[in-house]
This record gives sequence, structure tokens and C-alpha cells, in this order.
Amino acid sequence: MIDTPSSVSVPLKRGRDYAIRYTSLRDLPGILHDVGLRTGKCVVVTDENVGAQYRSPVRTALSSAGWIPHVITVPPGEKSKSADQLQVLYDDILEWGIDRDTPVIALGGGVVGDLAGYAAATLLRGVPVVQCPTSLIAHVDSALGGKTGINHATGKNLIGAFHQPNVVVADLDTLGTLPQREWTSGMAEVIKHAVIADADLFSFIEEHLVDVMTGRRRDLIHKMIPRAAKVKAEIVAEDEKESGRRAILNFGHTFAHAIESVAGYGTFTHGEAVAIGMRAALFLSAQRNTQAIPRENIDYVLRAIPQQHDPSELDWQDVRRAMQSDKKNKGDVVRFVLLDRLGQAYVTGDISDAALRQAWDFATRP
Amino acid sequence: MIDTPSSVSVPLKRGRDYAIRYTSLRDLPGILHDVGLRTGKCVVVTDENVGAQYRSPVRTALSSAGWIPHVITVPPGEKSKSADQLQVLYDDILEWGIDRDTPVIALGGGVVGDLAGYAAATLLRGVPVVQCPTSLIAHVDSALGGKTGINHATGKNLIGAFHQPNVVVADLDTLGTLPQREWTSGMAEVIKHAVIADADLFSFIEEHLVDVMTGRRRDLIHKMIPRAAKVKAEIVAEDEKESGRRAILNFGHTFAHAIESVAGYGTFTHGEAVAIGMRAALFLSAQRNTQAIPRENIDYVLRAIPQQHDPSELDWQDVRRAMQSDKKNKGDVVRFVLLDRLGQAYVTGDISDAALRQAWDFATRP
Ligand SMILES: NC(=O)c1ccc[n+]([C@@H]2O[C@H](COP(=O)([O-])OP(=O)(O)OC[C@H]3O[C@@H](n4cnc5c(N)ncnc54)[C@H](O)[C@@H]3O)[C@@H](O)[C@H]2O)c1
Ligand SMILES: NC(=O)c1ccc[n+]([C@@H]2O[C@H](COP(=O)([O-])OP(=O)(O)OC[C@H]3O[C@@H](n4cnc5c(N)ncnc54)[C@H](O)[C@@H]3O)[C@@H](O)[C@H]2O)c1
Repeated sequence: MIDTPSSVSVPLKRGRDYAIRYTSLRDLPGILHDVGLRTGKCVVVTDENVGAQYRSPVRTALSSAGWIPHVITVPPGEKSKSADQLQVLYDDILEWGIDRDTPVIALGGGVVGDLAGYAAATLLRGVPVVQCPTSLIAHVDSALGGKTGINHATGKNLIGAFHQPNVVVADLDTLGTLPQREWTSGMAEVIKHAVIADADLFSFIEEHLVDVMTGRRRDLIHKMIPRAAKVKAEIVAEDEKESGRRAILNFGHTFAHAIESVAGYGTFTHGEAVAIGMRAALFLSAQRNTQAIPRENIDYVLRAIPQQHDPSELDWQDVRRAMQSDKKNKGDVVRFVLLDRLGQAYVTGDISDAALRQAWDFATRP
Repeated sequence: MIDTPSSVSVPLKRGRDYAIRYTSLRDLPGILHDVGLRTGKCVVVTDENVGAQYRSPVRTALSSAGWIPHVITVPPGEKSKSADQLQVLYDDILEWGIDRDTPVIALGGGVVGDLAGYAAATLLRGVPVVQCPTSLIAHVDSALGGKTGINHATGKNLIGAFHQPNVVVADLDTLGTLPQREWTSGMAEVIKHAVIADADLFSFIEEHLVDVMTGRRRDLIHKMIPRAAKVKAEIVAEDEKESGRRAILNFGHTFAHAIESVAGYGTFTHGEAVAIGMRAALFLSAQRNTQAIPRENIDYVLRAIPQQHDPSELDWQDVRRAMQSDKKNKGDVVRFVLLDRLGQAYVTGDISDAALRQAWDFATRP
């Protein structure tokens, strides 16, 4: 059903369209040239895990093509999305010296993408950024759409900016070194994209469930990821600043954020929490629309995301309260994304406490 | 020649037009309502000097209208445009709690406007900002155009974002408490706007030179400031992100930045340095265009900006080198704004070292 494209385009207003180019990182210099970046200095930001694997081929490719790369390696993990780490980048980059045309190349997962993207958004009021995703989440989600930012003591992603990349260079072979738990976490977002906007992609995942969950079949991955990326790209194109339709990307996320916060960040991976949240949203959707929604098929796929912790041990009242204080709410109403049918989602604020409680029970049973 | 408008509009693309409303700060709540901001929480950022005068009437006006204002007062002066002060704002604002519709009201000069504007640009990826300028520079320059940001150890304004205000509430009577040296510094920017884009405004200044330099005649000020603000608004409207025409606002600034940096920041006020820089640019313009440019008239007005230090004591080679490293340069070419004639400017990179040296000598003689 699915072809492997070499490029997916992200159409934006005012000539800021960009492409996701599926190719080897070795082709980075050629692509920088294609998008009009002229050789000179460039900054590469990566983390220790990704850097150990890909820093040196990327540096070599850039240098050979006449670039002067400055590579900065940050510690891996969510902790690097901090004001302190951001300041380290600012100091390093500004002391090295850049001008408004110097690109920042983000080589890594969502943490590196968000941090380096935000630095690029704010250095000299914005320099070009090139996203080179290496985790599954980055390939299908965080590297696309221009959201960048860091965390604050009071919550995740509270400081940030929209800053679209000039191009996304997606080397799917980097996924070969991604740890299994990171892969499965990313699969939650892939499934989410299928469920909210691409019924064919869902069938593909369903058909190859074991193979895509382990991530071992290169041919399947090369079909699945560009397709999942396209869902995100299309939604972002319609609603760049998240004033409307983009909100459907939060399918499962109202519950997920609450779960992560109540359990303590890091207990559940984001993907594990999103999988539980999607099960809850699925239940609510099916309750309203019994005919249209193949609840058991979707739930079967969602339960394929392995859970390392038992969510039923969390206190429902705590989860309920945490949902109430989510920053995405407008005023007091908690907003949920539900399905009309497989492949089509909408936002609503109109859900009873009793229904939420039932959804929670459904979502937390094995 | 000039009328006093009650409002100047800043037309921007995609429905983000905003107005500069000339009125009392007491009318702030009504204006917030006019631009569609709904009462609820709001953050007011000010500095100690401005806060001492205007914090309490503003707070009272907001509270009476049903707003819940949270007032944050930062120390006065350029030092507050720092990462540390920014973090203080983030912590304070996020602990207090805001949502994406909570406006930040910047009540002060350019320092408060740039700092609070940047916080608003980056909190929750952007919340509304209302600029309430209280210094002359803020009225005619910094509160308009959406540039926000902070300084870095390696240079001024190196970290920032474009973030247009929802509205500018300009109470000209706040200028009554502005110290004289701040007034004269702002006059340099007023004169700059006249010289690059509004020959009538220049004639007005020339005619009332002593009165406008002291800032004491309310009737004149109420005519002059909206007119000077309009120059900036129109240029920004044409080129919001500074890719072209907006560069002419840097008239005098290539030299000025070099002077400030070589003398050590704070030795010359920005306005003093700009006045010297404009004299240099005037010289270069007249050299190319002897007929079109009334050099002596313009120079007479520029020399009315009092200088507290003798710029001829600076070493020319140091100034030359500092110009070379200005962040506004494209590659190696130093860019200057020159005049075609009074009221019309253009950008060029094509100036010989000998000419620069002559311009410097002209600009630094009393
Ligand atoms: N900006 C957005 O729109 C958006 C969307 C979704 C998530 N996010 C953010 O993304 C982050 C999560 O992304 P993530 O899961 O990629 O986190 P991550 O960047 O921390 O990567 C996860 C782990 O995998 C390692 N890794 C990544 N690629 C690797 C590779 N090819 N080989 C070996 N190890 C590799 C990393 O070093 C890290 O330890 C969160 O901070 C989240 O807020 C942002
Ligand atoms: N964003 C832009 O486009 C832009 C343009 C020009 C300048 N700037 C920035 O603006 C800053 C300079 O602006 P500024 O001169 O207004 O600086 P400022 O905000 O420090 O104000 C100067 C002094 O006047 C005091 N003050 C201001 N209004 C007052 C009032 N009504 N009564 C009594 N005291 C008052 C302040 O407390 C301060 O001590 C610089 O940081 C510069 O980089 C920004």
C-alpha cells in the first residue's frame, strides 16, 4: 500500500515550505546547498549517544564540502532541555562567532532537536536550522513542525518558540542504533498519527504489528516512517501555530501528560503514557460512536506498546486533577481529542467525570 | 505642518496589524478590551524608576476593570537585559501561573520593552504583549517593530526574537519624568527618523530646535513623537524581519556601535554615539551627492545633541576594526546607510577606507 518516497514536502505560508529528505547523512552538504545555504561556518549540536555514532561522519562530510563545522555535544536525556544547557550553547556558539546565515544543525532525538532548534530560533533573532532526526520520535514528530523549546521547573516545554527548519535530513539508517525502549516509545506516536489521520497506515501497522514494533525490518520501516511523518507535516501545514486543527496531534496526550506528572517524570516513557492515554481516548470515542469505531482492533494495536509499569496503581483523583491543570486547557475546560472514526479526529471539552473514570479503568487494564 | 493623531497604525501581514494609541495609561483597560484581550490575569513588567511613578496608577486602573495584575519590577538600566533577569521573570511568572492568553504589559523604556517583550515571545511559545513606552527611545523606536531580546557577554541584543505587540499604549505625559540626558539620547533617534524618511519632520525639528531638544513644550512633543513613530512603523510594515528596507533604520549605527564598543558601553549614551555616527554618514552621503544634501543644515541639528565625551580621543583604527566585526555585516563587507537626499536613504557596502577616515574626522570635530 505504501511507497518509499525520497522526500516529503511540508508546505507553509509565505514561501517557507521545506522538505523532509530521506537520504544518508553523508548527503547533508549537498542538501544544504540545495536549500541555498552557502558554505562557511556551521554549528552541529548533538548528544553523547548520538554523537558517538554519527558526529564524526557528519563532521567529515561537512568539512570535505568546504564547511567549517563546530560540533557541540550535550549530555543525553530530557535534563539537557534546560536553561543551563541553553546558556552553555549560547556561550559556546557566540564565543566561536556566527552571523545570521550560519546554520545550526540538530543531530539527534527530540531533546537535541528542541534545544538546538530553540537556540537557533533565538540566536541573533533567528538563524537557519536543519533538523537531522535520529530517534523515531524525532523522525515522525519532533523534527517536524517548528516547535522548539526547553523545560522549566514548573513544567515541560514552557519556554519556547516556533522556528521552522530550512530542511529536515532524515537518515533512517541511524535508527539501527536506537535502543529498543526508545523505538517502542516512538511507535506510540506513529500509531497515533495513523489513528487520527491515516487509516491505511493503521492497516499497514496492524498487518505487520510484530515486525514494526521491534523495528527490525528495514523495508517496512522505510515505508512506515515517511507516511507517519506526512501526517504530521500535513496537519502542521494547515495550522502552523496550533490555533486549531493541530490540536488533534494531542490525541491521548491529555491523559498522558497527567500520567507522566503523577507518576513522576521518567517513570513511564512518553510513549508508554501516550499509549495509555490513547486507550482512554479510544474508549471515550467508541462510547459516543459505537458503530464507526473498530475499538477492539485499535486497542489491540495500542496494547502492543509494552508497559514497564502498571498504570492502575496510580490514583485516579490525582490523574484527574493533573489533567485539570494542563497548560493546553482554555480556561477551566479540559480538552480531549476523540475519534469520529479511524483516521479522523476532533477536539472536545464536553466529557462527564463519570465517563472519564470509565475510560481510565478501560485504559489501565492489561 | 503636523497634526496630533490619537492613533498611528502599524500595518503588518496576516491580520497582525496593531495600533499605537496616544492616550493616558488610565485608558489601558479599555484598550486591552478593544484589541480583544479578555480580563483575567495579566503581568506588568516595569523598572524601579518607572515603577515608582506609574506602577500604582496602572495597577489600580487594571484592577478596577476586573484584571488580576501581577507586577514585576526589575532594576533599571541595560544590565537588566540579561539571561539572569530573564530567568527571574520566567520563574516569577510561571510560578504565579499564566495561560496562552495572559498578556504581558511592558511598562518602561527600551530595556523593559525588550526584556518583557522577549519573555512574552518565549513563554508558552508566545503570549500577547502590550508595549507601554515611557522613554523617548521607546516611544519612537524600541516599542515599535517587534524586535525583542537580551544581551550576551559577547555583544548587545544577540539573543532575541521578533514578537509584535498586540497594541502600543503611548502616554506622552509619562515623558514629564524622564531625565534630561535620556531625552536628548532619544532625540538622536527622532532626528534619525526625520533625516532618513521625513523631510517635513526635519524642518519642524530645525525650526523648534531648542524647544524640542529640551523637551519642555508639550504641544511640540505631541506633534513630533507620533510623526517620528510613524516613520518607524511604516518601515517596519514594509520589512518586518529586517531583510531589506528596514536596514535604513541603522543610519549612523555602524559607526555608533563601534564607538560604544571601543569607548566601553555606557561611556557614550547610545544617542550620543548615534549622533556622531549620523554625522559621519552625512559626510559620506554629501561627498557622493553634493547637490542633493543640505549638509550644513543637517549637521547643525546633529550637533545640537550634547556630547559628554570627546569622540576624537578614540583611536580610529580601533573604531574601524569594531565596525568590521558588527553582526549586521554580510560576510566581510561593512554596510553603511547613506542619504540620497534629505528624507531618503539607502544601504551600501562600497566605501573606501580613505573616505571612512575623512568621515570620522568630520564627525568627531566639535
Ligand atoms: N518539538 C516537538 O514538536 C516535539 C514533539 C514530540 C516530542 N518532543 C520532545 O522530544 C523529546 C523526546 O524525543 P526523543 O525520544 O527523541 O528523546 P531523546 O532525544 O532524549 O532521545 C532518546 C534517547 O535516544 C538516544 N538516541 C537518539 N537517537 C539515537 C540513535 N540513532 N542511536 C542511539 N541512540 C539514540 C538519545 O541519546 C536519548 O538517550 C521530549 O523532550 C519531547 O518533549 C518535541
Ligand atoms: N527593540 C528595538 O527595536 C530597540 C530599538 C532601540 C533601542 N532598543 C533598546 O532600548 C534600550 C534603550 O532604551 P531606553 O533608552 O528607553 O532605556 P531604558 O529603558 O534603560 O530607559 C532609560 C532610563 O530612563 C528611565 N526611564 C524611562 N522612562 C522613564 C520615565 N517616564 N520617567 C522616569 N524615568 C524613566 C529608566 O528607568 C532608565 O533608567 C537599549 O537596550 C536598546 O538596545 C531596542
